[in-house]
Order: sequence, then C-alpha cells, then structure tokens
Amino acid sequence: MLLTSLDLCGTFLFALSGAAMAAERRLDLFGILMLAFAASVSGGIIRDVLLGITPPAAIADWRYLAVAAFAGVVAFLRPGWIAAVSGPVAVFDALGLGFFAVNGALKALNAGLNPLMAAVLGMITAIGGGIARDILTIRIPMVLQSEIYAVAALVSAAIAAFGLYFELPFWPVVITAGVLGTSLRLAAYYRGWHLPKARLPETRSGKPPGTPDERE
Amino acid sequence: MLLTSLDLCGTFLFALSGAAMAAERRLDLFGILMLAFAASVSGGIIRDVLLGITPPAAIADWRYLAVAAFAGVVAFLRPGWIAAVSGPVAVFDALGLGFFAVNGALKALNAGLNPLMAAVLGMITAIGGGIARDILTIRIPMVLQSEIYAVAALVSAAIAAFGLYFELPFWPVVITAGVLGTSLRLAAYYRGWHLPKARLPETRSGKPPGTPDERE
Amino acid sequence: MLLTSLDLCGTFLFALSGAAMAAERRLDLFGILMLAFAASVSGGIIRDVLLGITPPAAIADWRYLAVAAFAGVVAFLRPGWIAAVSGPVAVFDALGLGFFAVNGALKALNAGLNPLMAAVLGMITAIGGGIARDILTIRIPMVLQSEIYAVAALVSAAIAAFGLYFELPFWPVVITAGVLGTSLRLAAYYRGWHLPKARLPETRSGKPPGTPDERE
Repeated sequence: MLLTSLDLCGTFLFALSGAAMAAERRLDLFGILMLAFAASVSGGIIRDVLLGITPPAAIADWRYLAVAAFAGVVAFLRPGWIAAVSGPVAVFDALGLGFFAVNGALKALNAGLNPLMAAVLGMITAIGGGIARDILTIRIPMVLQSEIYAVAALVSAAIAAFGLYFELPFWPVVITAGVLGTSLRLAAYYRGWHLPKARLPETRSGKPPGTPDERE
Repeated sequence: MLLTSLDLCGTFLFALSGAAMAAERRLDLFGILMLAFAASVSGGIIRDVLLGITPPAAIADWRYLAVAAFAGVVAFLRPGWIAAVSGPVAVFDALGLGFFAVNGALKALNAGLNPLMAAVLGMITAIGGGIARDILTIRIPMVLQSEIYAVAALVSAAIAAFGLYFELPFWPVVITAGVLGTSLRLAAYYRGWHLPKARLPETRSGKPPGTPDERE
Repeated sequence: MLLTSLDLCGTFLFALSGAAMAAERRLDLFGILMLAFAASVSGGIIRDVLLGITPPAAIADWRYLAVAAFAGVVAFLRPGWIAAVSGPVAVFDALGLGFFAVNGALKALNAGLNPLMAAVLGMITAIGGGIARDILTIRIPMVLQSEIYAVAALVSAAIAAFGLYFELPFWPVVITAGVLGTSLRLAAYYRGWHLPKARLPETRSGKPPGTPDERE
C-alpha cells in the first residue's frame, strides 16, 4: 500500500519531467500527455514484460494513467510553474529514481531472478522512462551521458536485491537502498560529479576529447 | 473473418506509408521491406506482448509479412504511384487507423482489461506502427506533433471499448467507432485542425512560440 | 552447450561494437557498459519476449551481463585496441551475426512457429542489437542502410529454419546456415556489395539520388 503510493508519486514526478520536455519541444496537448505517460510508465512496463507479468501494472491499473495525465495537464496549463520549481523537481526526481529502482528489484526477486540480475532489472525500471522520453524526442538518452544517474539507480537496486536475498530485515534494507541512491544522485547533480570517459587515441576533428561541441 | 480482412487491409496501407518514407530516405530494397513491416505490425505486436499473447499474431501468421512485403515491393518498383495516390492513401490510412484502434480495443477487452485501459491500448495499437517507423528513421514521431492523429485513434478505441463494455449491440458500436475516428482524422487532415500548444513563458531564442523553425 | 558458448562469443563481439560506438560518442564508463549490454542482448531479449519466454535468457543468466561488461571495460581502458583490430572485429561480428540468426531460428522453431516466421525471428534476433545500439545513439540503424547485413542474417536463419523443418540432418544444416550467412556478410563488407535503391521520380532538392549529403 505504501509502496504503491510511492510508486504513483514517482510516476507523477517522472510524468512532470516528460511533460516539461514535451512543452519545450512545442508538442501539442496530446503530445504532452503521451510523453508524460511514456516517461512515467515505460520503465515499469519493460520490467513487467521481461518478468512475464502481463498485462503490466501500468496498463491494467488506470491510476497510473490518471496520475500521468494530471501531470501533463499541469505542465500544459502552467508551464511556468515547472520552470520555477526545477530545484524541487530534481529532488523529487531523485526520490522517484531511488524508489523505482528498489521497487523494480523487489518485483524481480519475487519473480525468481537472482539478486545480480534483479539489481539490473531494478535499474532498468528506474531509467527506462527517461530513455523512452529522450528517444521519442530524438535525443541521446540523458542516462547514457555524463551525469551519474543510472549508477545511482543501480546502487539502490543492488542494495535492495542483495539485502533481501541475504534475508536482512525488510524495512531497513529498503529505506537504506532508497536513501543512498537518491543521495548519490542529488550529490552528483549539485556537485557536477561524473564518471570518467574513455581516452580516445585521437578524435576525427583533432579537438581534445571532451570539447563541449563534440558532445552535441 | 471480416475483421481479419480489415486488419490485413490496414496492414497493407500502413506498410505503404512505411515503405514510402523508406524510399524517400534512400534506403535500399531490404530497408524498404523492413520499414514496411515495422510500420504495419509494430502496433499489433506491442498490443499482443502487453496482453501476454505470444507469439503475437503478426509473428505467428505469415500473411502479415506477405502483405507488408507486397507493399514494400510496390513502393520500390513504382515509387511514382505512391506520390500520385497520396490523397487516397491519406483516406485509407485514416480507415486503417480507425479499424486498428477498434480491433486493439476489442482484443484488450477480451483479455480482461477495464474499458478505459482497453481504449488506451487500442490507441497504442493504432499509433505504434507510425511511432516505430519514425523512430527507426530518426524523426520525432508524427503522432506527437501537431496533427490530430492519436486523438482520432483514441476516439475510435474509446467508443468501441465503452460501448461493448456496456453491452450495446456489437456491429453498430464497432461501425460507429471506426467511422467517427476515421472521419475525425480526415477532417483534421484536410482542414488543418490541431490541438493547442502550451504557452511557454519565454523561448530560448526570443522568438514567439510556434515560429516554424522552432518546430524543426 | 556448444551453442551457448557460441552465443556468449557472439554476445562479446556485439558488445565490443556497442562499446566502441559509445566511446566514440564520448559517453562515460557507465554509458559504455550500458550500450555494450544493449547492443549484445537486445536481439535475444526481443526474440524471447515475442516467443513468451520470460524472463529472457539474457536477463535470467548473469553470464550475458558479465560478458558484455567485460567487453565494455576493455573498450573503455584500451580504445586503441578496438581501432587496431577493426578488420578482425568485422570478421567476428559477421560470425556472431550468422550464429545469432541460426540460434534465433532454432529457438523460434522449438516454440512452434512455422519455418517462414522462424526465419524472420532469427533475423530479428541477429539484427536487434545493432538497431538498439543505433537508436540509443540517435542514428538511422545501420541495417536499414546500404550494407547487406540483414539479408545475410535472413539467409542464415532461413536455411536453418527450413532445413530443420524438413528434417534434414542437424549439424550440416546448422553449419551450412552459419557459414553461408557469415560469408555473404563478409563478401558484401569487403567488396562493397549493396542492394538496389528505389528510383525516386524526383528529389526535393533537385540533386540526383544518392548524393552523399542526402543520406545524412
């Protein structure tokens, strides 16, 4: 019950991020609603399909659609609000990331996956929506680029998967997992942490690696 | 039987649209065949996977492949024909849209979904192929942009899903659903109707919203 | 057992191609690992989901992840190696293509598909990873463009599917299928073979078809 509430809360926040990007791209009202829905439920749908849980929760349960539609309408009617609260949204987005990752890992463990692959599936659950949002608007997915985003999701999912696999107490494991992943994401966001990149022997244009315009 | 014929008819018309886009993008014969197949069957495959119907009809039944391949070969050998019949193709595409949406909604209702989510799945069935076609050729999906396309699919799917859920007579509901969605799509196409866009507080370049080059 | 080894070998080589592209795109270490994983397992995951085999082998079995991660780390630490061995990689990639196609066709036959659709599913298995890799980095999928790649996969898959459907001896069929598809791919690669393109009646810019900048 609590987990479902958190799941819907994460859905709302991810839907806001999708809707904000759709509005920025000048999509119409329906495009905004669709991108809000895609950004918020794609991760969970991929998780459920891979686990053989059909129809996926986000397709069978109308509340996911309602929450995503509400976020889309807010973004459509009050685009200024989203810009004004970008700080809090980053916080809530990081919260959603952590809890989606934990939730995905639990569902995968329950379906019989080993803890390593349950952690991977938890991460996919948390980042799938952002990937769908970016692919649909034809951008290289943000999670593939330099911010520590997928790593934070993996940390949350791995703590949850291995902690519960070794039968540590439920709530401490789940809370630790969610808090650590969320904190890592926020620290990376505010301090600009990023992972190292490969040192290419040379670049085609002769510019040193990492030159901003290389990243498009 | 009739529904299967209409399904294959819709498949053919969606395959033509995929093949025409592939030819325009200078893909080779096989690329044209693949894009014709992807554009015509992706929606139905997504629907079946989400409902747990595996293998999906379009994978288990060779006729979908045959119809898509025929459309691809026509588009390859006679690209001029497609350009010449773009008016009728828009009509048939709208027909395919309506019947795919109805078909998807029926299949979802049969699988036990509630009527709201059956309507959503019917819409996904009708627009999935166009999304796959556009993503594979790296364009922002047409359905996310300003034409009333997904809305028409949703209208068809919703009438079918709620009508049959409340046990109204089968054929009147199905025909009304298909005709209304198709008509809405055609009216929007020929009269240039579109949904409103969000009013952004300001744009990065200082241009008023809706300036053509902003939409890329 | 032998087939599993070959499957993991193909996974390694496809992972290298994904990792090399990620490094070239200046993705960070985690982006490289994710693209290596996506490029090497997407085809098999799509195959398993379409056949109703859940969780897919690449999600249930940690060895696929381990092999992909190893390829990603190699590409990250020694990007020069990959550039130096691009010739051999093309050979191994073609080998992986042939065996993935055969493997996919066998699994589809076992799941009860007719041989025609088993061949199609074998081809999808072999090319799915490359499509995922290209879409995630926002490029028109290489297999849709002018190299004979999907055709080679289809040749392998079709020989395997029809040969085993007509109960020809197992090993000769499988080896012939793998060798022919791989050879066709290599011949096309080294000799620049390609399929014909549609002759468009005219192009928008008035340039003759095939002008390089038209292909973007």
